[in-house]
Amino acid sequence: MQIAILAHEKFPERAKTALGVLRYGTDDIVAVLDRDNAGARVSEFVPDVQDAPIVAGMDDLESDDVDALLIGISPIGGEFDETWRGDVRTALEDGCDVVSGLHYFLSDDEEFARLAAANDCELRDVRKPSDDLGVADGVAGDVDAEIILTVGTDCSVGKMTTTMELARDAREAGYDAAVIPTGQTGIMIEGWGNPIDRVVADFAAGAVEEMIMEIGDEHDYLFVEGQGSIVHPAYSAVTCGILHGSMADKLVLCHNAGQEAIHGYESFELPSLSTYVDLYEGLAGPVSDADIVAGALNTSGLDSDDEAAAAEAVETYADELGVPATDVIRFETDTVLEALLED
Amino acid sequence: MQIAILAHEKFPERAKTALGVLRYGTDDIVAVLDRDNAGARVSEFVPDVQDAPIVAGMDDLESDDVDALLIGISPIGGEFDETWRGDVRTALEDGCDVVSGLHYFLSDDEEFARLAAANDCELRDVRKPSDDLGVADGVAGDVDAEIILTVGTDCSVGKMTTTMELARDAREAGYDAAVIPTGQTGIMIEGWGNPIDRVVADFAAGAVEEMIMEIGDEHDYLFVEGQGSIVHPAYSAVTCGILHGSMADKLVLCHNAGQEAIHGYESFELPSLSTYVDLYEGLAGPVSDADIVAGALNTSGLDSDDEAAAAEAVETYADELGVPATDVIRFETDTVLEALLED
Repeated sequence: MQIAILAHEKFPERAKTALGVLRYGTDDIVAVLDRDNAGARVSEFVPDVQDAPIVAGMDDLESDDVDALLIGISPIGGEFDETWRGDVRTALEDGCDVVSGLHYFLSDDEEFARLAAANDCELRDVRKPSDDLGVADGVAGDVDAEIILTVGTDCSVGKMTTTMELARDAREAGYDAAVIPTGQTGIMIEGWGNPIDRVVADFAAGAVEEMIMEIGDEHDYLFVEGQGSIVHPAYSAVTCGILHGSMADKLVLCHNAGQEAIHGYESFELPSLSTYVDLYEGLAGPVSDADIVAGALNTSGLDSDDEAAAAEAVETYADELGVPATDVIRFETDTVLEALLED
Repeated sequence: MQIAILAHEKFPERAKTALGVLRYGTDDIVAVLDRDNAGARVSEFVPDVQDAPIVAGMDDLESDDVDALLIGISPIGGEFDETWRGDVRTALEDGCDVVSGLHYFLSDDEEFARLAAANDCELRDVRKPSDDLGVADGVAGDVDAEIILTVGTDCSVGKMTTTMELARDAREAGYDAAVIPTGQTGIMIEGWGNPIDRVVADFAAGAVEEMIMEIGDEHDYLFVEGQGSIVHPAYSAVTCGILHGSMADKLVLCHNAGQEAIHGYESFELPSLSTYVDLYEGLAGPVSDADIVAGALNTSGLDSDDEAAAAEAVETYADELGVPATDVIRFETDTVLEALLED
């Protein structure tokens, strides 16, 4: 499939979904839409993902070249930005499907629904949860697979990336590992999954459990994509539902090097790493005995040429946690995988 | 308003909503529907609430006597029990409104919707959340009121009851106190509120915050109705969303005397009380510095005539927590209120 990704004014730093699909997706990316960087290429910003030209909008693409437009950014709250309307309209008029992970459902938008019907194309709101979810039974721990969950000190610290990198590296090392996608990007990459942040709060744990029951006996390892943070002023409910619904065996703590406050909630300082460890392990304990056995430090905010500084930051992080750690993008994942995949 | 309450086969022990409305509601209860106890009276089971006759079904009531039928029980999962259909049908045919806190929305049921339209009566699904909820801003702590949240060691340990009793006793002692209702019973009693368990997980904290912002500057104390438990295999997401969304100042830990495992999830033992204290305070800490300053022990499972045993259980509970405690139904709330209302 030929895909264009909308990431206006946010590429690459604040375009998590766009980057995830560029990095892990199997579709062919024909362009990234970013009016601030039109004329450049993805590789100028991010060297180690699928390359593509950056254009100002759908009008700059041949309609025959694109099968689907994917919304690759999500503002806090998941609202639709009206400055994107022209691109979505053009895509639908050209017969492209539009795939979105926003809280705002494109299929509920009158104009988009009308255009999609008229041009015989699909509006896929991946954050629209399935209707048959229910309450957790507390049985995810019964599957054959070992369950490994990424948890974090905040949103956007690399939980999805860590999940994808570790699962891929485990598979490349010969292990039978699969991903349990819980958010828009993971779902877009994997092609299935429950958007836990959009599920009724009572069913959050159940929606994770359902996925684990579905494939948990077919694999040796499940890497569950975590969300949010357990002390986030807005999103901790989702984090807690995933922690208990997954009944994780092992946890990987993800953190942004140098980050000191909650992104978008700057009056809230991040507590110490040891506080996070105590809270995640303490909370997991009564439901499934999970320890933080590895760390993933996102050093993308540090000088990209200074490998030594990044390596030092990772080493400090590992020392503080007392477990192996890495930057899954910048460095190898061997020692972390060893801690996760050993019995 | 004249109300009948449906509580088939569950009254009184497993009819939390029915009991809550009998105890704290201001409407006139004309009957409780319980086919297992038809012919008896509420006062034979529960002496200290509004009394009413117990009947086998709506057919036993004069249609002129009832303005609304209220569903007063909720099975795990909030499903509709098909054995209740006849009573709901009769109520609607008699022109009664039907009020429900089930996850299953009566207004989405074809037969009920048709009958309600034909007989000009209302189907009120109080668990259907409003459409304009959003993500928390982390600002509930800014209101003038002191925020007091009930938290628990499990579901159904008395958080709603404790909230209602403490708010009422505080008002009777001359304090300006209001309730923030977060669940079906609280909403039915108070006549407003957001059903947090039914809210999209990303908006759980935001839906609590919205209520606090709405009335938080008009009162000196807000008693927030807690839900679930922070280590519940299915419902912890809701608990966590309320804890952080409310940005509580003080916590009251509610517990059932003698309970050792999670109700309905018996393979999960309750952790120690000190574990609960550490987890609730530890989790609250980074968002709002809240301590557990009082305890509420539900001794209704102990011999109802043995006041001494109940008093001893409360004393042991208070000692273990190191804070004042009471059974809000059986004993006075003075020492607990003192701990909560002091500066």
